[in-house]
Amino acid sequence: MFQVVASAPGTAARRGQLTTAHGVVDTPAFMPVATQGTVKGLTPAQLKELGAQIVLANANHLSLRPGSALIRELGGLHRFMGWDGPILTDSGGYQIFSLSPLRDITDAGVEFRSHLDGSRIFLTPEDVVRLQVDLGVDVMMVLDVCVPGQAERGEAARAARRTVDWARRSRRVAVAPGQLMFGIVQGGPFNDLRAEQVRELVALDFPGYAVGGLSVGEERAITMAVAQETAAGLPPERPRYLMGVGLPEDLIRFVGMGYDLFDCVLPTRNGRNGMLFTSAGRLNIRLAQYARDPRPADLECACYTCRTFSRAYLRHLAVSNEMLGAQLASLHNLYFYQQLMRDIREHVARGCFDTWACERRARLTEGEPA
Amino acid sequence: MFQVVASAPGTAARRGQLTTAHGVVDTPAFMPVATQGTVKGLTPAQLKELGAQIVLANANHLSLRPGSALIRELGGLHRFMGWDGPILTDSGGYQIFSLSPLRDITDAGVEFRSHLDGSRIFLTPEDVVRLQVDLGVDVMMVLDVCVPGQAERGEAARAARRTVDWARRSRRVAVAPGQLMFGIVQGGPFNDLRAEQVRELVALDFPGYAVGGLSVGEERAITMAVAQETAAGLPPERPRYLMGVGLPEDLIRFVGMGYDLFDCVLPTRNGRNGMLFTSAGRLNIRLAQYARDPRPADLECACYTCRTFSRAYLRHLAVSNEMLGAQLASLHNLYFYQQLMRDIREHVARGCFDTWACERRARLTEGEPA
Repeated sequence: MFQVVASAPGTAARRGQLTTAHGVVDTPAFMPVATQGTVKGLTPAQLKELGAQIVLANANHLSLRPGSALIRELGGLHRFMGWDGPILTDSGGYQIFSLSPLRDITDAGVEFRSHLDGSRIFLTPEDVVRLQVDLGVDVMMVLDVCVPGQAERGEAARAARRTVDWARRSRRVAVAPGQLMFGIVQGGPFNDLRAEQVRELVALDFPGYAVGGLSVGEERAITMAVAQETAAGLPPERPRYLMGVGLPEDLIRFVGMGYDLFDCVLPTRNGRNGMLFTSAGRLNIRLAQYARDPRPADLECACYTCRTFSRAYLRHLAVSNEMLGAQLASLHNLYFYQQLMRDIREHVARGCFDTWACERRARLTEGEPA
Repeated sequence: MFQVVASAPGTAARRGQLTTAHGVVDTPAFMPVATQGTVKGLTPAQLKELGAQIVLANANHLSLRPGSALIRELGGLHRFMGWDGPILTDSGGYQIFSLSPLRDITDAGVEFRSHLDGSRIFLTPEDVVRLQVDLGVDVMMVLDVCVPGQAERGEAARAARRTVDWARRSRRVAVAPGQLMFGIVQGGPFNDLRAEQVRELVALDFPGYAVGGLSVGEERAITMAVAQETAAGLPPERPRYLMGVGLPEDLIRFVGMGYDLFDCVLPTRNGRNGMLFTSAGRLNIRLAQYARDPRPADLECACYTCRTFSRAYLRHLAVSNEMLGAQLASLHNLYFYQQLMRDIREHVARGCFDTWACERRARLTEGEPA
């Protein structure tokens, strides 16, 4: 199911392959976010063309609208959204805790108000597995309990405890053949709580492990330290998924800690706002300095946007609020992320990840490109 | 430059070819609207894939933003918008009259306030030709004076007179090699005014003739009668362009009157609003009846949207306000229009347009498809 095919000396980075019912994912991999069953602004054909091998959807969002039973009736999420590659669904735990104005967590499960119509919904961990069975996804996540980055130890410990209990109950639910279930490590900024979680989750022998509850308001040094220590404790023969991060330069660091899977809304959300990632730093395409700039957004990029359009045109679309501006910027940003992962995989495989990573991160964090 | 290659017995429909500096356009042709230099929601690659051979942009909009001199500096509109096929620009006369809160027409030209920032702008007919020379388009339109459909005879006559005077002045301005300039027939609902216009414009020997000022509030019977009589008066060896219309069933009728070129915002605007044209009538994809419908939007369509997605998915995107919904519906609608024109051209060439047109129009005007 998961094979490490190369490791990078001097770091914990590894090159792997995750085999799913809908194809192989080369890791380290970045998953474009398709919360509602669509990567905002891109067709599945465009996603495939830019090299995405797996996408991430949100089980809770899809179960609220249009409904997981409806998607099952229609042949599952792959057919529904026209994507025949692997799909991973987040359980929606994070969204329930961040979006829902009223929520009530008990040992039994979570009661919350739908962010769509305010209706009261009660979900057990078992329900959440079944939703994902209905969706027919390749990789599902257990329901977890997130706490804010500033949470106190008591609150983090209670959330961690519930997350493990729920993981145990989730693991007992039958899934469809070929479906993989990942456990999630919580525990806030407390390394000892996370280490304890890891021990208990590993005893449940999940096919893969996610690390959640990072980049949720805690200091950056803590994010990095906790991410590193948690990864080191996870079994090397299983894929490690760091949830919801991050900037390109951060992905390079997290790969160096041994993480294999990532997802983040930044490429599409920032693209919609006119921010383009480039090999020479971030570019705010709305700036007047690009009004007459005939060059592509990223001089080193081979994506459709950069092969076809000037910065001047992209700026024109952005300041004119033209939909195509959001589409082309999102397409470029997702290509940029995929290309970054291809570069990472190549350098890990070649055994020169460490030196490459240092130079690459420096270039990525430069300011507005000339 | 324009060749009629077949005619349809019993109607004025003809199959033709318009040769431009950027390629041949098979007529009758429908031009997707790219007012600001982008067909809303579609990449040029997608436009090409769905069979569009020519697009329409707006000279006045582009000269206000980003500026025609800027576009010239960057290599012209084709390179700017990444479209290497033919481009026709409307002069913007219609938009000046419909968008601008304050406008003042004299024999010299038109003074108006920019719809973007309220600044005062004065344009002569000669200026408008030069803007289109700067843009480097294949087909340009002269500046004309539009009147509402309910205009009285005096107002329509004055507008017609000015339109001819301006056409004469426009014709004297040098254009770039290969650029074609079309005259525009105005005259409101008054056939005699239009006949007079036609005589004067034809004396100026334009490479093509457009008919403007229809579908601007007048009764439908008048639209049809005036369109028919005006087309009949135009020289058969030159292309005839009916501006800004229309519904698919109307295009079939206008082709039967002898029109060769069309443009309309309906496929993209309606697509963004969740209305899809289908071979069995119009479909409002937001309706609850499509929530579980596994069928493609149009059972007979071969476009990417219909090949890939169900009505249920398209409805989900529309009710979730996902950008992809607007994109996929626009793509389908434009493909539908292009396919309609391919069907029209085929039936004109085969000599059986008349009988086909009658049956096809009936099916197009049915209600919501089952």
